[in-house]
Amino acid sequence: MRDRRASRDATAVRPIITLTSDFGLCDSYVATMKAALLRQCPQARLIDVTHNVPRHDILCGSITLERAVDGFPDSTVHLAVVDPGVGTDRRLIIARIKRQFIVCPDNGLITWAWQMHGGGGGGLGADREGGGTAREITWRPAKFSSTFHGRDIMAPIAAQIARGDPLESFSRPVSDPILLNDLSPAAPGHDSARIIHIDHFGNATTNVPHEYIRKLPAVTVKVRNKTIGKLKRTYWDVAPGKPLALIGSSGLLEIAVRDGSAHDDLKVRVGDLVHLKP
Amino acid sequence: MRDRRASRDATAVRPIITLTSDFGLCDSYVATMKAALLRQCPQARLIDVTHNVPRHDILCGSITLERAVDGFPDSTVHLAVVDPGVGTDRRLIIARIKRQFIVCPDNGLITWAWQMHGGGGGGLGADREGGGTAREITWRPAKFSSTFHGRDIMAPIAAQIARGDPLESFSRPVSDPILLNDLSPAAPGHDSARIIHIDHFGNATTNVPHEYIRKLPAVTVKVRNKTIGKLKRTYWDVAPGKPLALIGSSGLLEIAVRDGSAHDDLKVRVGDLVHLKP
Amino acid sequence: MRDRRASRDATAVRPIITLTSDFGLCDSYVATMKAALLRQCPQARLIDVTHNVPRHDILCGSITLERAVDGFPDSTVHLAVVDPGVGTDRRLIIARIKRQFIVCPDNGLITWAWQMHGGGGGGLGADREGGGTAREITWRPAKFSSTFHGRDIMAPIAAQIARGDPLESFSRPVSDPILLNDLSPAAPGHDSARIIHIDHFGNATTNVPHEYIRKLPAVTVKVRNKTIGKLKRTYWDVAPGKPLALIGSSGLLEIAVRDGSAHDDLKVRVGDLVHLKP
Repeated sequence: MRDRRASRDATAVRPIITLTSDFGLCDSYVATMKAALLRQCPQARLIDVTHNVPRHDILCGSITLERAVDGFPDSTVHLAVVDPGVGTDRRLIIARIKRQFIVCPDNGLITWAWQMHGGGGGGLGADREGGGTAREITWRPAKFSSTFHGRDIMAPIAAQIARGDPLESFSRPVSDPILLNDLSPAAPGHDSARIIHIDHFGNATTNVPHEYIRKLPAVTVKVRNKTIGKLKRTYWDVAPGKPLALIGSSGLLEIAVRDGSAHDDLKVRVGDLVHLKP
Repeated sequence: MRDRRASRDATAVRPIITLTSDFGLCDSYVATMKAALLRQCPQARLIDVTHNVPRHDILCGSITLERAVDGFPDSTVHLAVVDPGVGTDRRLIIARIKRQFIVCPDNGLITWAWQMHGGGGGGLGADREGGGTAREITWRPAKFSSTFHGRDIMAPIAAQIARGDPLESFSRPVSDPILLNDLSPAAPGHDSARIIHIDHFGNATTNVPHEYIRKLPAVTVKVRNKTIGKLKRTYWDVAPGKPLALIGSSGLLEIAVRDGSAHDDLKVRVGDLVHLKP
Repeated sequence: MRDRRASRDATAVRPIITLTSDFGLCDSYVATMKAALLRQCPQARLIDVTHNVPRHDILCGSITLERAVDGFPDSTVHLAVVDPGVGTDRRLIIARIKRQFIVCPDNGLITWAWQMHGGGGGGLGADREGGGTAREITWRPAKFSSTFHGRDIMAPIAAQIARGDPLESFSRPVSDPILLNDLSPAAPGHDSARIIHIDHFGNATTNVPHEYIRKLPAVTVKVRNKTIGKLKRTYWDVAPGKPLALIGSSGLLEIAVRDGSAHDDLKVRVGDLVHLKP
């Protein structure tokens, strides 16, 4: 982390800050956070991930945030605000995962990124990138609202990280960031495969990494008592309207319906168990 | 205003232009306005406030726009297009409020920003920042549509302001910008407190500034014949599902339901009177 | 095309990349494409056109994309991903239209821009700007998904074009890009006028260019057996709630309802024939 400022100056690349929230797109809340970011880091690039996380849905926010961490380059700062506990004494944290930063409430939002990339104890992370760390944000402005810490605390901190300020000046290490209990990658031998996300197209993402499913010879996928069948490569390997299982663009097992919607047509839901039969 | 160009060159900060409209996010209209902005001010930073203002809803646009003016730094240019009168001879204006610029139709869109920050005669402005001014846009391109002045007139003007062109070259002072009659901050002693906005979460914003309500000892809030109770500090001061009144992030009195929606659960609507009983 | 790199260096203007897709705004897919763009062209300006094209609706995507091509300056790169055939051997293409670039699947998405600006054989293009060309993208990364070529192939190519890499290094000329059969500008003497798009306001855009309708003396417009009447200049030329025909901001004949919605009030739909009676 020491060398960030130097390397940034050398390349003169503008820092990237992404935004993920449940604020919706009808009000000025997102723009207000961007104003706070630009006040302290005018050179930042601001990229919206989504602001349509369902209200207070930390699980959905966590899955979405992991995709951003997966895609963006080193040193990106991800500001993620799904914050049902705003106004309580819940902690605000900075997580360092995959050479990137997440600034968010300490309510489990970091879980999926931590599990997939951060080495968070037994998950896939250790096999992949290793080494997630977390810090508690200790800084508070002289005056701040009790309902919008995204604007008043988290955005200023994200901006300071983006411009290369030392983390020590506004945070301290913590060893126990909150992780959602029931969100971890499925492991062979455990009956722990489940649907963790439904996307815009009605595709159902599971917690089954391609590394694991590819070790299973000719696995058959079953969900809600419907046999989806063996793993396919593309949507076009089945007829229109038919369900299929494939490795999605996130590297996870997905259940889809060609030219249709697994959500609507198969009635699958987040949390549904997925059966993998060799 | 004289010194803007100089100070901008010195700091080399890129000018910010925000966009607020009722164009929605399904068509290319917003991108088309951005193309017009970038043609004349390629260095501008473009920040969307929202494009989901309900069609022709000038009141909602005005509340939203004020929040942008509140958050952004000096010299920001706000392009706001909610324009039911496009194609008529309604004026287009530039308002100077809080060292920022608003470019919009002269239909009342500036009202809330003017009242809260501009010193517009008797409102809070005089107590706060003072000195809103307005100019009529006199410039017209050689050829322009009769249905999309956002693209053809307002965006080019916003871009020229952002790059520091003198206002005199395309506008002239006016003293009578249109303000919405029924939109002003509630004043003590007047029965004028009302709901002016409902946000994405169903929270109801009133026109009651925190300066005023804090002068009232132990005020009790009532709306639609429901007693909301005394002012609370955070959502967590009431049980889940219970209504509360608190000072929202905009500095105004808000009525909310913890983990719920004042809009859905209390059936409050924009325009509802709010009773404050000491 | 030869001189692009030189002229870009000279002006030091940051390249513009626009994004159009049917990905929606709830997931991280759009941000993931932006991450891929910024990895290869960190200096790019990214402008969203829309991500709310209805799923797999190539016609709607094509109309939307043309508007972006119409508005943006020379050298803009448009990344357009409405890609029902992802995972098949459908081609990916680069179209050069109006001194701009479109990167998209070869499924007809380019049609309306090609017809209106590209000189695509008999359409308006020849009268206007002339000279659309197309190339097939031959480059593939070492490893890529079978479901998200927007991220894995098209975004990297768009970024390379934006930074000025020679097209020859990743593509080859083709002479037969796919055009949608039933999407071309209406021509006088042919009964081919129809509704091609319905916008956010319920306005119905037709394929009738203003050049043609202005040649018709006192044309009367009829759709769905309703007489809309003679061409008007603005919405205000009819009473509230009344239908009208006018030249819209796209330069095409539009059918609208003042303060209403042609879609809701007249029940017009994409594909409806429009009758022009002199």
